[in-house]
Amino acid sequence: MSELNLQEVLDFAIDLAKKAGKAISDGQAKRFTEGTAAETKKNSADLLTEVDQATEKLVKEAITAKYPDHAFIGEESAQGSESVPEGGCWIVDPIDGTTNFVHGFPYCCISIGFTYKKEPVMGVIYAPFLDHLYYALQGHGAYLVTAQAPEPRRLPLAKPTPLPSMRQAVVAMEWGSDRRSEILEAKLQSFRRLCGDPEDVEGGKMVQGIRSIGSAALVSASIAAGSIDVYYEIGTWSWDQCAGTAILREAGGVTVGSKAWTSKALASDSMFGTVPPEVLMGRKYLSIRAIGDTPQESGRAAQKRLIKEFYDAVVEFDPK
Amino acid sequence: MSELNLQEVLDFAIDLAKKAGKAISDGQAKRFTEGTAAETKKNSADLLTEVDQATEKLVKEAITAKYPDHAFIGEESAQGSESVPEGGCWIVDPIDGTTNFVHGFPYCCISIGFTYKKEPVMGVIYAPFLDHLYYALQGHGAYLVTAQAPEPRRLPLAKPTPLPSMRQAVVAMEWGSDRRSEILEAKLQSFRRLCGDPEDVEGGKMVQGIRSIGSAALVSASIAAGSIDVYYEIGTWSWDQCAGTAILREAGGVTVGSKAWTSKALASDSMFGTVPPEVLMGRKYLSIRAIGDTPQESGRAAQKRLIKEFYDAVVEFDPK
Repeated sequence: MSELNLQEVLDFAIDLAKKAGKAISDGQAKRFTEGTAAETKKNSADLLTEVDQATEKLVKEAITAKYPDHAFIGEESAQGSESVPEGGCWIVDPIDGTTNFVHGFPYCCISIGFTYKKEPVMGVIYAPFLDHLYYALQGHGAYLVTAQAPEPRRLPLAKPTPLPSMRQAVVAMEWGSDRRSEILEAKLQSFRRLCGDPEDVEGGKMVQGIRSIGSAALVSASIAAGSIDVYYEIGTWSWDQCAGTAILREAGGVTVGSKAWTSKALASDSMFGTVPPEVLMGRKYLSIRAIGDTPQESGRAAQKRLIKEFYDAVVEFDPK
Repeated sequence: MSELNLQEVLDFAIDLAKKAGKAISDGQAKRFTEGTAAETKKNSADLLTEVDQATEKLVKEAITAKYPDHAFIGEESAQGSESVPEGGCWIVDPIDGTTNFVHGFPYCCISIGFTYKKEPVMGVIYAPFLDHLYYALQGHGAYLVTAQAPEPRRLPLAKPTPLPSMRQAVVAMEWGSDRRSEILEAKLQSFRRLCGDPEDVEGGKMVQGIRSIGSAALVSASIAAGSIDVYYEIGTWSWDQCAGTAILREAGGVTVGSKAWTSKALASDSMFGTVPPEVLMGRKYLSIRAIGDTPQESGRAAQKRLIKEFYDAVVEFDPK
């Protein structure tokens, strides 16, 4: 395989994301006007739509035509046991935030990630109903383009501020569709510790706010923008996270994996490298925004301290 | 007081909301570029910003100049013990979603509600970072205008679908800033019942999704649009809810108050009238979207059934 032109990969992905975004909004309009919602319900908290499948087909066919040698991992066609190959690999969620899409809530997007030599090196996230386009290429920064601010703005949007403790943090977490009792109780305990006043709850962090937005990719993009501080997720897949991790890393943020992986990574500083396959495919993710240096502490040291503080508070579980 | 021209009130409020929105986004840009965030922290989960106060001043002065006889209830100047007068009364939150604003997350807005003869008859909600404008006038419908769809679209955005049970519902609830132990535990129990599988959790509703967005007004607007199904909130104030209830009602939705109030209202069908002062000022709100009729059940009957089902699941508490 000849050396890849990554700028061309990015340009192609941005163009493709916009085409897919058009298909998504056209699909929405058709569903809204015709009222012919033909969703197949996996279960009441996990919807699959025709538009989702059609969008993945559109994206996959375009990629296969342009890059026939590349691998493709997409939500609708994946088996869940894929491994990341050495060559170019597209990791795509045709509609991230499916429930929002089905209900017409605008926080949904197409998420196109790309790994090369097993590293996420490119990410494009496009939210057609918001007209928000996030993208990043390894070593070239992360950017946001919106209808209101069409000149690409580098992420994070403002100079990173310090984050003294979890008390100042807005944390994104989701309830998810897996409602087995042990998982629900683990989440409730995590929420209790994150929200609770330490005077009442042992280990309470009293975070400033909790957000449940319903789109992994757009939350990762918001962490990259600096508008949410921390994002914790168990049970999502590589296609929900790949583009977001590539964008976040270029914006000075960090994504780590399970508690066990992170514990080793914190000791070696390896968490500041690219996201390795065992994290990308590991279904346990903790992301934190770029943090500003203070005279007392570098932003990198603050990220480490806060990741440790966060993992002390939450209960880990194994997804189905 | 001569009879009021409500169309003029609406036109004035839309114009004012856009001016306030400009002040909000200019304030954000100033904070971002100068890095001189001068927030006074009420506590770590309840921020107050200079922009908030300046925006309320701008709005209040414009209203006082145009309508000197009208009353004004605004977040920044309110005592919390206001009652709704008989004449025109403006109920305003200069920045709804303050935490989102401070962090740069785009879900924040100005919320301008108006009561006349003690009824919410007009509402305008404008989110400057999304350029989403929602408005409604009693008897004239509710509308959404966005940059992408500048022609006013009537709300809800699609023909209301049926809602067979809470299983199909996306529910908005917030964690709030009052983290006293009894309140946190009440919320955790409500979340457990809403999310839980009835096989594991007694009374579990296994709702399709939970959203915590961080802006009462924009969530109410999303219920009006039909893109979130149910919104439950304790502890917010009239200025967080007034515009939203006016918009929601014109979009076929319903807002009820405390469990005790609702229990009586369900028996008499009075919940389908305008929101009375004891609900508007009562700090306990449950809103539900317009629901489509089925051959078996009218949308109104479905709203009543689902309100009852929802209130059976959640734990009520008294806000500070």
